[in-house]
Amino acid sequence: MFSVTVRDHMMIAHSFRGEVFGPAQHLHGATYVVDATFRRANLDPDGIVVDIGHAAELLHAVLAELTYRNLDDEPAFAGTNTSTEALARVIADRLADRAHAGALGEAGQELDGLVVTLHESHIAWASYERPL
Amino acid sequence: MFSVTVRDHMMIAHSFRGEVFGPAQHLHGATYVVDATFRRANLDPDGIVVDIGHAAELLHAVLAELTYRNLDDEPAFAGTNTSTEALARVIADRLADRAHAGALGEAGQELDGLVVTLHESHIAWASYERPL
Amino acid sequence: MFSVTVRDHMMIAHSFRGEVFGPAQHLHGATYVVDATFRRANLDPDGIVVDIGHAAELLHAVLAELTYRNLDDEPAFAGTNTSTEALARVIADRLADRAHAGALGEAGQELDGLVVTLHESHIAWASYERPL
Amino acid sequence: MFSVTVRDHMMIAHSFRGEVFGPAQHLHGATYVVDATFRRANLDPDGIVVDIGHAAELLHAVLAELTYRNLDDEPAFAGTNTSTEALARVIADRLADRAHAGALGEAGQELDGLVVTLHESHIAWASYERPL
Amino acid sequence: MFSVTVRDHMMIAHSFRGEVFGPAQHLHGATYVVDATFRRANLDPDGIVVDIGHAAELLHAVLAELTYRNLDDEPAFAGTNTSTEALARVIADRLADRAHAGALGEAGQELDGLVVTLHESHIAWASYERPL
Amino acid sequence: MFSVTVRDHMMIAHSFRGEVFGPAQHLHGATYVVDATFRRANLDPDGIVVDIGHAAELLHAVLAELTYRNLDDEPAFAGTNTSTEALARVIADRLADRAHAGALGEAGQELDGLVVTLHESHIAWASYERPL
Repeated sequence: MFSVTVRDHMMIAHSFRGEVFGPAQHLHGATYVVDATFRRANLDPDGIVVDIGHAAELLHAVLAELTYRNLDDEPAFAGTNTSTEALARVIADRLADRAHAGALGEAGQELDGLVVTLHESHIAWASYERPL
Repeated sequence: MFSVTVRDHMMIAHSFRGEVFGPAQHLHGATYVVDATFRRANLDPDGIVVDIGHAAELLHAVLAELTYRNLDDEPAFAGTNTSTEALARVIADRLADRAHAGALGEAGQELDGLVVTLHESHIAWASYERPL
Repeated sequence: MFSVTVRDHMMIAHSFRGEVFGPAQHLHGATYVVDATFRRANLDPDGIVVDIGHAAELLHAVLAELTYRNLDDEPAFAGTNTSTEALARVIADRLADRAHAGALGEAGQELDGLVVTLHESHIAWASYERPL
Repeated sequence: MFSVTVRDHMMIAHSFRGEVFGPAQHLHGATYVVDATFRRANLDPDGIVVDIGHAAELLHAVLAELTYRNLDDEPAFAGTNTSTEALARVIADRLADRAHAGALGEAGQELDGLVVTLHESHIAWASYERPL
Repeated sequence: MFSVTVRDHMMIAHSFRGEVFGPAQHLHGATYVVDATFRRANLDPDGIVVDIGHAAELLHAVLAELTYRNLDDEPAFAGTNTSTEALARVIADRLADRAHAGALGEAGQELDGLVVTLHESHIAWASYERPL
Repeated sequence: MFSVTVRDHMMIAHSFRGEVFGPAQHLHGATYVVDATFRRANLDPDGIVVDIGHAAELLHAVLAELTYRNLDDEPAFAGTNTSTEALARVIADRLADRAHAGALGEAGQELDGLVVTLHESHIAWASYERPL
């Protein structure tokens, strides 16, 4: 199995509901350094999983819809906690939708899986992994 | 599959028995930067795998029993080499025992797996992965 | 010249005023991974610049006053942009005040300088350096 | 499952054929920071997956055959693109061949799998994973 | 003293002349992860050293003139070794020229110094520091 | 001013005397990831500060005298605490002595300064800087 990973980031504000979150129930924020991994059993005729430049552009486009926002105000997240792990799934699902829709060309149709990891600090990160 | 990882560290002395270890047969030491990954198929009602703060406290408690010690003097390790990979299993098993005993609340009962990685330098690390 | 550095982090919300900031004029947030460096020409009788554990506690105490907050609501920052570089000075000055007040013991009185670096992402960081 | 990883690097020149590569069709180069992960279900009698020193020597020997070269001139790569993911497979296969041939001693015969990751920059990397 | 640093990268081929370079006399290549640090004694009216977005664009523009090239073929480097430290000066001087020419706006006219660091691997890097 | 930095590591056991050290008074250990920076105002005729390969060999030779040892048993450190900052000076002074003695060739005679940084974990490091 092959994989290619690209890294980008987003900077958002949000708050959490639930006693378990302690002080994180207050409005605060995070830089999420985001790694998107594209998996594929075999390489394409050019010898790649997916072009790294195209993968980076796709990730950037998905993050552009989230960065520099207060996620508490986004209708897409109404009634949910935008935890690091929940956001990893949101980003993975949006990448998958766009790959299926052709954003990565033919290479994107041949992908077998996707992992998205969000680093919230130097001591904590979360991932979501799904088939594609 | 979702996962959450927290990072902490410990600083120990030890030595190894066996010719394969060369100069590491002498008493020396290591800083182990320790990553503990908690895996779960679905998020809990708060939208998380496990609270990152609670996961960090649990890891810290497990490492507190090992750090600032000469592992050659610890009865728990008598007759064994405290290699990086062996210590990864010790820490994973102790985290699993405590999670089963309720240290992570209900969330801890729903975990599907655990990975512990110990970084011994910028050029070497080892992991142990187990179901939970 | 000797130095000792400790690392911690904070997670805040804020917004900027000024066209130069573009989309960062919206309420967003950041994780700042914070490095505090304590400089000293000579070591103390224990052979250290300052105890690393004490330095870490001091940095943690200063960051505890900022983390999990919306800095736009903090009176201390009224009328100012809480840019990465401006926050580096705030943290450096608060560390200096506490060191002068004895928070690092006698060692803290002998320090010659302080550098605070805030990493806002994997591709951008800012520092403030001052004598002490 | 246990694993041990060692890191080394190589510095090569190459170019790519195919419009998808854009400016990377020109002769350019890369530093690849290479992580080789050796997996094994059980530890050997010394309590290790494989000796970290021996693993590091094996990886260094494999990379020595590639580093400081223009890969466009290497017969082994004629007619193929030496993409990051393709090189990850080349290195993994060469490590596997040598492990099977005894380069890691008896421990090397008991390995269950191998992962090779090549970091081409701070924002992109690729992996190849295979059984052993 | 304040500073702001932005990170980007370039991927080049080159070779060195001189016996001291050993195998690096052959055509090979490197990824240089490049950090550009802008220093300034006081913050501007917006509370910044220089806008991080503008600094990143400037660095990207300078690196765009070097990346995906064989530096042995660039007239600008005829008769010189494009060592890591020599390239750090080239990039610093080009950043300085553009800042003086107004690429960073008024903020760029107030800068006091510049440091450029090129990381050629996980175990080696080089810097050039100059007033501005 | 130019600089070149190389990274290596050592793994040692030791203990500290003094109440300030708390649990670190027990025999424990550390991995020190060591960065040695060589500074020089001008490049040599080959266009370098010092050959990176030679600098790496020199650092490795100095660390070979310390690694895989219990520093409490080393006569060189009798009566002193081998704190991170004290070890940074030891290593810097030994590098300086060897550079003066010709270990870096003529280039080593032209160096202007030296900085040694020891990383003891992901959250703490110490440096010593000296002219040369």
